[in-house]
Amino acid sequence: MPAKINRQMVIAGIPTDRLEVSHYAMREAAVPEPGAGQVLVRTLLVSMDPVSRTRITGKPGGLQIGDVMPGSGLGQVSASKHPDFKEGQVVECQTGWQDYSVHGAEALTGFTRLGPLTHHLSVYGVSGLTGYFGMAEAGAPKPGETVLVSAAGGAVGHIAGQVAKIRGARVVGIVGSKEKAEWLTGTLGYDAAIDRRAGPLGAAIKQACPDGVDLYFDNAGGEVLETTLTRMKDHGRIVICGYASQYDTQTPETATRGVPSVVLYKRLRIDGYVVMDYYAHKQAARDQMAAWMKAGKLQVSVDMLDGLERAPEGFVGLFNGDNRGKRMIRVADEVSSS
Amino acid sequence: MPAKINRQMVIAGIPTDRLEVSHYAMREAAVPEPGAGQVLVRTLLVSMDPVSRTRITGKPGGLQIGDVMPGSGLGQVSASKHPDFKEGQVVECQTGWQDYSVHGAEALTGFTRLGPLTHHLSVYGVSGLTGYFGMAEAGAPKPGETVLVSAAGGAVGHIAGQVAKIRGARVVGIVGSKEKAEWLTGTLGYDAAIDRRAGPLGAAIKQACPDGVDLYFDNAGGEVLETTLTRMKDHGRIVICGYASQYDTQTPETATRGVPSVVLYKRLRIDGYVVMDYYAHKQAARDQMAAWMKAGKLQVSVDMLDGLERAPEGFVGLFNGDNRGKRMIRVADEVSSS
Repeated sequence: MPAKINRQMVIAGIPTDRLEVSHYAMREAAVPEPGAGQVLVRTLLVSMDPVSRTRITGKPGGLQIGDVMPGSGLGQVSASKHPDFKEGQVVECQTGWQDYSVHGAEALTGFTRLGPLTHHLSVYGVSGLTGYFGMAEAGAPKPGETVLVSAAGGAVGHIAGQVAKIRGARVVGIVGSKEKAEWLTGTLGYDAAIDRRAGPLGAAIKQACPDGVDLYFDNAGGEVLETTLTRMKDHGRIVICGYASQYDTQTPETATRGVPSVVLYKRLRIDGYVVMDYYAHKQAARDQMAAWMKAGKLQVSVDMLDGLERAPEGFVGLFNGDNRGKRMIRVADEVSSS
Repeated sequence: MPAKINRQMVIAGIPTDRLEVSHYAMREAAVPEPGAGQVLVRTLLVSMDPVSRTRITGKPGGLQIGDVMPGSGLGQVSASKHPDFKEGQVVECQTGWQDYSVHGAEALTGFTRLGPLTHHLSVYGVSGLTGYFGMAEAGAPKPGETVLVSAAGGAVGHIAGQVAKIRGARVVGIVGSKEKAEWLTGTLGYDAAIDRRAGPLGAAIKQACPDGVDLYFDNAGGEVLETTLTRMKDHGRIVICGYASQYDTQTPETATRGVPSVVLYKRLRIDGYVVMDYYAHKQAARDQMAAWMKAGKLQVSVDMLDGLERAPEGFVGLFNGDNRGKRMIRVADEVSSS
């Protein structure tokens, strides 16, 4: 039986620079009533997606104080006034950081359960598919190539790196701590890992990739991208998948001015990559990853925090690289319909 | 009969920021003697290539005070101690900014004369081939696409833009003066031209390319590249051919930090492009351009200054955009062998 209140984590302040837990506050509201054709969803899991940070601008079009923090997640139908959705069914939707939300049918996606529910926010969700298509299709490493992955221990990176490894590449990851570096090589099968906080990054890449980098899968942007440019092989490829270094600030860098010289002389190819462009092949990707997991070739790391009240802490921690793999918040447990 | 002295334009000072005529001085030296297997070449035409500016650094590996300014050119064999080259033959080589130079056979390229000699430094030379391959092969515009060319009145740009037009694209050029803009549309057949000094560039591109840019052929880098990024269509392509905005300074920009967001969201593809990668097809390119010129589809603009003493002025003026088309210096007239 659902609780009578809807806890909502709302924006309580606009950061002047870095986001802090104090920029959020919990509010209690009434559980909304679904109208005709609508569905009430009780949130089970909320995905922590670092790029959401870029919406907290305080500017027109951005999030404002008092807004519920948006986020995608998985939820269970709590009440339905639409024939296609029945109580107890688990759906994918924009739950936001709250206990309950109301949606029209077009905003809900049903899915066939493959393994634990968390898989549908991690390996089979947006982050896992991003890592899969970004590496397998956009990057397309050849056997023996040297592939460098930044944010390599993150939700996207830890999948992307393993896909490159499965494809026969030599894979090097960049992470933000010694512990994560050890996790990449010890558990995920990366050939080498760089703790970018341990010393000059350029020298570390040179040591880990002495012949240069064939393919750089970039989730970082900023200094990591700049430094990597000079360590690329001629005709190297860069897939720009994210730019996490520029998320947690109100003044992201916009300069491009020096790119051309190194792009030109090394004949680099740089591609912007958005996973939705590959969604026609989504099911094939999920099937492939399921087969790899069954064969022990692909490991999925879920970084779970329990309780909606921990969402701000979990989200802010992303920008310190606290997570290993896909971070999510468990808001409620699934209610068995039996 | 050759003169007895060899005038040489040498580096007389290292700029702290922008290059000036006073950073050069004329020196008189003895005409060098070719050794066994060598060839003495009398300079006829010297090419003005803006990227040479990046060698005047004063740092180890760069040009030093007293060095003859390097440059490619066309010259006539004045004395030969190699059986493959005979007196009076015109060759392509690194003449430098001087009357005479000595070369081994491996440093000389003979060629079949196609039209006036200047064609071999312009349309059939490095700059013309760069414009041809960069547009026809690397950029590969489709009919009806909107193609934007920066430094569009320069040696490379004025060829590249016309190639795009021949391929059926709608072509817009960016130049540095009203007169050049009128030249592009009135004489070269560009569909529109932007004087980047006349007002905000972003607004001008938006007006000239209301549906966005499919292909940007970049010779400028810097602010022009930055501004253009936001005016690209989704899945647009950028060919990085040069970065003229960063040549005439001792402190070129190296930042790339903000590129990723726009590259990602617009799914851009950026390619570094170096003409030498296409040299296997050099003759086919020359034949194609010769046919286009004969058919009146391709116009070649040569911007000639007379006399070695004018080389510094001609070179420095490149960075102010003074040239229309390919700038070169006439050092001497060809001596007829008949």
